[in-house]
Amino acid sequence: MSMIGFIGLGNMGGPMAQNLIKAGHMLKVFDLVPSAIAVLVKDGAQQAASAEQAVAGVDVVISMLPASQHVESLYLGEAGLLKHIPPNALIIDCSTIAASASRKVAQAAESIGLHMIDAPVSGGTGGAIAGTLTFIVGGQAQALERARPYLEKMGKNIFHAGDAGAGQVAKIANNMLLGITMAGTAEALALGVANGLDPSVLSDIISRSSGRNWVTELYNPWPGVMDNVPAAKGYAGGFGVDLMLKDLGLAAEAAMRSHSVIALGELARNMYALHSTQGNGKLDFSSIVNMIKPADK
Amino acid sequence: MSMIGFIGLGNMGGPMAQNLIKAGHMLKVFDLVPSAIAVLVKDGAQQAASAEQAVAGVDVVISMLPASQHVESLYLGEAGLLKHIPPNALIIDCSTIAASASRKVAQAAESIGLHMIDAPVSGGTGGAIAGTLTFIVGGQAQALERARPYLEKMGKNIFHAGDAGAGQVAKIANNMLLGITMAGTAEALALGVANGLDPSVLSDIISRSSGRNWVTELYNPWPGVMDNVPAAKGYAGGFGVDLMLKDLGLAAEAAMRSHSVIALGELARNMYALHSTQGNGKLDFSSIVNMIKPADK
Amino acid sequence: MSMIGFIGLGNMGGPMAQNLIKAGHMLKVFDLVPSAIAVLVKDGAQQAASAEQAVAGVDVVISMLPASQHVESLYLGEAGLLKHIPPNALIIDCSTIAASASRKVAQAAESIGLHMIDAPVSGGTGGAIAGTLTFIVGGQAQALERARPYLEKMGKNIFHAGDAGAGQVAKIANNMLLGITMAGTAEALALGVANGLDPSVLSDIISRSSGRNWVTELYNPWPGVMDNVPAAKGYAGGFGVDLMLKDLGLAAEAAMRSHSVIALGELARNMYALHSTQGNGKLDFSSIVNMIKPADK
Amino acid sequence: MSMIGFIGLGNMGGPMAQNLIKAGHMLKVFDLVPSAIAVLVKDGAQQAASAEQAVAGVDVVISMLPASQHVESLYLGEAGLLKHIPPNALIIDCSTIAASASRKVAQAAESIGLHMIDAPVSGGTGGAIAGTLTFIVGGQAQALERARPYLEKMGKNIFHAGDAGAGQVAKIANNMLLGITMAGTAEALALGVANGLDPSVLSDIISRSSGRNWVTELYNPWPGVMDNVPAAKGYAGGFGVDLMLKDLGLAAEAAMRSHSVIALGELARNMYALHSTQGNGKLDFSSIVNMIKPADK
Repeated sequence: MSMIGFIGLGNMGGPMAQNLIKAGHMLKVFDLVPSAIAVLVKDGAQQAASAEQAVAGVDVVISMLPASQHVESLYLGEAGLLKHIPPNALIIDCSTIAASASRKVAQAAESIGLHMIDAPVSGGTGGAIAGTLTFIVGGQAQALERARPYLEKMGKNIFHAGDAGAGQVAKIANNMLLGITMAGTAEALALGVANGLDPSVLSDIISRSSGRNWVTELYNPWPGVMDNVPAAKGYAGGFGVDLMLKDLGLAAEAAMRSHSVIALGELARNMYALHSTQGNGKLDFSSIVNMIKPADK
Repeated sequence: MSMIGFIGLGNMGGPMAQNLIKAGHMLKVFDLVPSAIAVLVKDGAQQAASAEQAVAGVDVVISMLPASQHVESLYLGEAGLLKHIPPNALIIDCSTIAASASRKVAQAAESIGLHMIDAPVSGGTGGAIAGTLTFIVGGQAQALERARPYLEKMGKNIFHAGDAGAGQVAKIANNMLLGITMAGTAEALALGVANGLDPSVLSDIISRSSGRNWVTELYNPWPGVMDNVPAAKGYAGGFGVDLMLKDLGLAAEAAMRSHSVIALGELARNMYALHSTQGNGKLDFSSIVNMIKPADK
Repeated sequence: MSMIGFIGLGNMGGPMAQNLIKAGHMLKVFDLVPSAIAVLVKDGAQQAASAEQAVAGVDVVISMLPASQHVESLYLGEAGLLKHIPPNALIIDCSTIAASASRKVAQAAESIGLHMIDAPVSGGTGGAIAGTLTFIVGGQAQALERARPYLEKMGKNIFHAGDAGAGQVAKIANNMLLGITMAGTAEALALGVANGLDPSVLSDIISRSSGRNWVTELYNPWPGVMDNVPAAKGYAGGFGVDLMLKDLGLAAEAAMRSHSVIALGELARNMYALHSTQGNGKLDFSSIVNMIKPADK
Repeated sequence: MSMIGFIGLGNMGGPMAQNLIKAGHMLKVFDLVPSAIAVLVKDGAQQAASAEQAVAGVDVVISMLPASQHVESLYLGEAGLLKHIPPNALIIDCSTIAASASRKVAQAAESIGLHMIDAPVSGGTGGAIAGTLTFIVGGQAQALERARPYLEKMGKNIFHAGDAGAGQVAKIANNMLLGITMAGTAEALALGVANGLDPSVLSDIISRSSGRNWVTELYNPWPGVMDNVPAAKGYAGGFGVDLMLKDLGLAAEAAMRSHSVIALGELARNMYALHSTQGNGKLDFSSIVNMIKPADK
């Protein structure tokens, strides 16, 4: 069993750390919120007084933070963690951040001989708890192989997207497409219903035709069409509008750096931004259908 | 075996009529293009000198025409075919046209006691030849049951979308979503490639993640990712840009009538319109990726 | 003084007819709403029992109707008015309708020797009452010259856009651009305010810089920036969201016929459609800023 | 006369510095490109061997750099210029950069007692040479008053937009709106021409109607409508597509930080991005009309 330093114990990081403890690993944990640490300590983790203390003597460092600036300021700079991580330790950053930020940290790590992978996840808090997350990994194949035993305790699918930062790129490319297909599916269903169709009948037809996609198969946004989806529970739980907005923002940032055309992606971003502005940021992102469909349907 | 009057023998109608002949039906065929008639006559159909003659004494009338105005002017008005169709004959219009036009003709038929269904198809010329089309049907369930034996000779899947016009609505809702997911998939792949990813690796990741859709599964637009798709053959064959443009235009028309919001759908329409304006109207619609991706990839 | 048959006495047609009466012309008026006729009769017009009666013996026919289908069914067909208009009478259609519909009616008129112009207006009900409308005219120059004395009694500016239908095309091109600049100005102001700027200061800067347009000069959408605009009166009066939506719909229809790319125009159309769906169809179109700006500004 | 340290002597900075020399000021100049320094030295400036040397003993520091990262790395950090600027000197940054970057540098300056304004310009290289630029200023009113005599030597219009960073916000809000009205005007003209109108006639009508804007008045994109605009010279000169793209990118960046909705702004950004991808990045931004209009017009 290994000694793991785990930093960032929020809705995602908390249950991920718990699954590593269950698998028999020893964890030293740190978060800016003391109560988040307390939960893990109860489960058997060692409390660290700082990020620096959390990585002392560990085999693996895992971080799960909200945004690029948090990851950059954790690892880099004068007081950065890179200076305190043991020489042979592997760094696994599971945060979803800008690919450019991932690359910057990975290069800084490599320049002092440390190996790092970016391993953003999908699957939400449900997947984090159940240990069924998907990891999309960027970095060297050898580093991924070293990380695999740990990732397998927290998730089910592991993809190798390419070099440093590639995990981030693949994740936001996927999530941008998801954001587009969700809003596009909402438009298609609303158009059908406004023209007299039954949403279940139309959903069934589409899901067996060329318009079919992950949304029509597993995550239909129209209330009453599927059980066990956010649309069946008032759009509670699931993947929040503001999280989708964050990922579409990362996509836009990447597109601007690479001079890419993502006209649909940026229009989708604005649709979720409008939906959020109108007070729906915490609802599941499939609630975008409420903005699009006629008020009386 | 039945006597069928078949009107409209183009790239789709021709092979559909042939499949009915192969199944043992007797066909009286008409088209404005004499050579199209000649092909069918060689296969055993009876030549009709006019649409009126084609429907004399038949059990079933099938039409397959390019656009709303053709269907309206075939069936309606002073010289309209409805006045010449035998009282017990069933009308099956397989054209993809505006739902409002379908409803107008169906109502006119019904007002004189004739039954009609709208049964637009998907599956392209390949499906028409192979007899594996999908029919999306609007009209009464009884009329669909009468039509089913004929449809089954020309296609594989038959969906009942609802009342008159519902077949058209469901088809354009599906195809609008397809137009969006194709262009969205192209954007996602181009974004990934511009940021250093391999298109096959990224396609594989997406097709096993939440961004997956019919395009990533069966019709990848990026050259070299899949065999046996238009992208592998210089975008020849398949479903043309101008046909996608037509369907997105029908979606826009329906949206305007029903005051629906289809922001992504209309943006996609403009993307294909631009692609067509730049000289690509006859290429398969997956060639939209060429407009989006960097010139050197 | 001339005898004029005036058909369509709504919010626009009513005051336009009154201005012709004030100028000394004799009017025979018809509308489907009897009370609309009554108002004009009180002002000195002759009541007609039908459109046919309204045009008997007149020098000029003026129509002001809501949409393409009304104009087509008024003039065309078996019972159409063209058959009843005196041989030397001039037809002035002031309705805003599809250019294709205008051309169709104009051609039918011409085929029996009648001259017709399309003369859609801008300026709203205020301009109709004040007699300060703008007419954008399609048709032959001679026909416009015959119409000019009448148009000058109802409006201030008269533009000759080209042949039959050109008045419609020019009007919707202008109004599409207006719809875009209004929504674009709203986005620019909201972006500035969300980033700490004062809306009046920013409006002033833009109106003296390269972003300036008719909206920033005369019709600022942000409350408190200008007096005497709809934004100063809770967006009452002015040019309604649903009217802008109608004109953007006509633009989309024309674009589809001519295979034109109007990506911004159709996105704007969807923005006003969404705003209307959310219950704001009757407000002035500058209220689109409410959909875009942060809730607390 | 004052001693001015001028850093950044490109297409804009070079002529701006020359106008200050002509006005009698003494300049110490620095640029990474030696030949750019040489030009100014010929005009009477003192050559500085480094940015640090350029600001030694000066009354005013003026910088004109390409992007946020250049401004941040010039002024901030261990080796940053702020540590070398004389205590009473005023800093004028004329670069167009992210408002957030402007604020960051201004705060750092203020924290050590230095006054700074952001003063991005519009007017292009022509305006820089002629001394007719527009400055949009963010910062304290007093600092602007100190800067005014220098700005007046380089430009004609000076706007005070608000506090630190406000100059950047106002400039990108204006330029985003300009990017939208240019592309929107191109769509409106192309729609009109595709429907039979003469581009000059339509331009004239719009420029006297509610669709009018700076583009229709002074910078018509359609070839043959106006003299002395880029459209009359093959779109050479003027304001490049890639520069518009940069400003729309800054607008998108600001919108993402402030959770603003700029659906039209981001669609316009993608239209210019596509136009640039297709090889037109160096042409004037009014060349966007070439992407939109039919090939044969």
